[in-house]
Amino acid sequence: MGTVYVGVDIGGTKVMAAAVSASGQVGPIARRTTPGRRVEVTLVEDALTEAVFEAADGRPVAGVGIAAAGFVDALGERVMFAPHLPWRNDPTRSRLEARWQTRVVLDNDANCAARAEVALGAARGVADVLMVTMGTGIGGAVILGGTLLRGRNGMAGEFGHMQVVPDGHGCECGGTGCWEQYSSGNALVRFARSRMRHASYAGTTLLEEFTGGDPAALTGPMVTAAAERGDHLALQAYEEIGEWLGVGLANLVAAFDPELLVIGGGVSAAGDLLLGPARTALEQSLVGAGHRVVPPVVRAHFGPEAGVVGAAALARSAG
Amino acid sequence: MGTVYVGVDIGGTKVMAAAVSASGQVGPIARRTTPGRRVEVTLVEDALTEAVFEAADGRPVAGVGIAAAGFVDALGERVMFAPHLPWRNDPTRSRLEARWQTRVVLDNDANCAARAEVALGAARGVADVLMVTMGTGIGGAVILGGTLLRGRNGMAGEFGHMQVVPDGHGCECGGTGCWEQYSSGNALVRFARSRMRHASYAGTTLLEEFTGGDPAALTGPMVTAAAERGDHLALQAYEEIGEWLGVGLANLVAAFDPELLVIGGGVSAAGDLLLGPARTALEQSLVGAGHRVVPPVVRAHFGPEAGVVGAAALARSAG
Repeated sequence: MGTVYVGVDIGGTKVMAAAVSASGQVGPIARRTTPGRRVEVTLVEDALTEAVFEAADGRPVAGVGIAAAGFVDALGERVMFAPHLPWRNDPTRSRLEARWQTRVVLDNDANCAARAEVALGAARGVADVLMVTMGTGIGGAVILGGTLLRGRNGMAGEFGHMQVVPDGHGCECGGTGCWEQYSSGNALVRFARSRMRHASYAGTTLLEEFTGGDPAALTGPMVTAAAERGDHLALQAYEEIGEWLGVGLANLVAAFDPELLVIGGGVSAAGDLLLGPARTALEQSLVGAGHRVVPPVVRAHFGPEAGVVGAAALARSAG
Repeated sequence: MGTVYVGVDIGGTKVMAAAVSASGQVGPIARRTTPGRRVEVTLVEDALTEAVFEAADGRPVAGVGIAAAGFVDALGERVMFAPHLPWRNDPTRSRLEARWQTRVVLDNDANCAARAEVALGAARGVADVLMVTMGTGIGGAVILGGTLLRGRNGMAGEFGHMQVVPDGHGCECGGTGCWEQYSSGNALVRFARSRMRHASYAGTTLLEEFTGGDPAALTGPMVTAAAERGDHLALQAYEEIGEWLGVGLANLVAAFDPELLVIGGGVSAAGDLLLGPARTALEQSLVGAGHRVVPPVVRAHFGPEAGVVGAAALARSAG
């Protein structure tokens, strides 16, 4: 006894890990920076290892669940492709199991987040749910009749790479105009940077202070901190990604007609700064909006930690 | 004995009806023109009535299935909303049952087409299938695990109104930039008209002959006839809607990761004129295309008649 199950979530920017109880109580979060997408795979594994061991805090680990921001094969063995990470057709699960000498399970990050929200969070008792995780990019998961949709390749729910702008911004996936280029942590920073460069904003925004006047130094947390203090430019950047979130959600609702939309990932911590504009845009963009029940758009109960909670639950259910 | 089940498909342009046997043998097709979307509902019902009675050809009718290009409620009672037809929250099923004095069942046209293709056509034995019907607009249906996805409002699969171009062409649904504005029978005519107006095409296209030189007189069947005779402009118009078909399919595959894509509806009669460019664009646009099995894009076995066949099958299964 005294063993723990650890969930670890690896996104394009950061790694988070925590021990999670059966009821979803989340221990202290261990954090690392994701080493990048053009680095050796071992560097990424080192970051995961440090985070997992810090989260375990000396207790024996009964199992680790990994929530990865990438395409995981239907067996949960390999990361096939990950726009923001170096893994390519990589036997991640077995290699980390060998390294850590404990049971390891692997799934897509949004699938893990959806698992947490359905079992313990905002989607309890709801049969048909779409989960959208907004971090560096956008991840997605589809729950229909209470069951996760995996798809032919295990790649269902890759909402972030649906094209919303023809010949739009280039994406790490190789495509152009992907939804996540307009609504994500990366998009938040790009929109704010672009506005900072307008002369009309000179002297009017905290972001100049935070960055020493250099838009290239801007980060997502700076935009969030400024928005929380009412900074006009930062709020506009949230509004912009929020509107794009709503437009993309309208496309998903047209296709799936779900009961509920749950928004997780790091950017969801902004709450109604993000979800307010998203709800408005969803109502405006959704086909037949006056002739149907429009699904509620709610924040993940576990917020940015939903992936960690779901990954730990997956490890626990694997025994 | 000697009774027939009749399937009738009503789209934005035309009404088709036929008696269909249990094995999917389709009798002679009765055709009428759809009266329009700004007319009295009774005019539409008159057109349906004529088509059904012509298809029955004097035989007693055991049941009629209606495949409607619109949002049908989950009970199959009402057409809630139809961008190309006058019905609005209309108790279509019960009213036609009273008028025809025979059992009537109602479903969305793409759902009916998918039912036909899964039971008797191109999707036999396939669990996860997306059906896209291209007529005046685009309809869609989702089959997962062999079961039709209906959604919260019975409106799942409304692919045609997913936005593919921000602030794009206005759509009958009230939105802008909807997929069906770029890939449908209407889009085919618009693209061809737009090219006819370029001076560089003067004297080079059959469409001038067909229309007496007036682009406004152009119709979809004219474009198809010209394309079949190798007309360069008509072929380009098919290529354009084919490429847009592929771009939209890539979005759907990112979300659903299905095993198979089946294309039906009147425009699908063009076969590889349409599907060739669509397959190329799908491969180019799909996220992770090098790391996954890309689903085949096939023409509906029942072609433009899939909706009729599925509607008749629905009536037959209702007893």
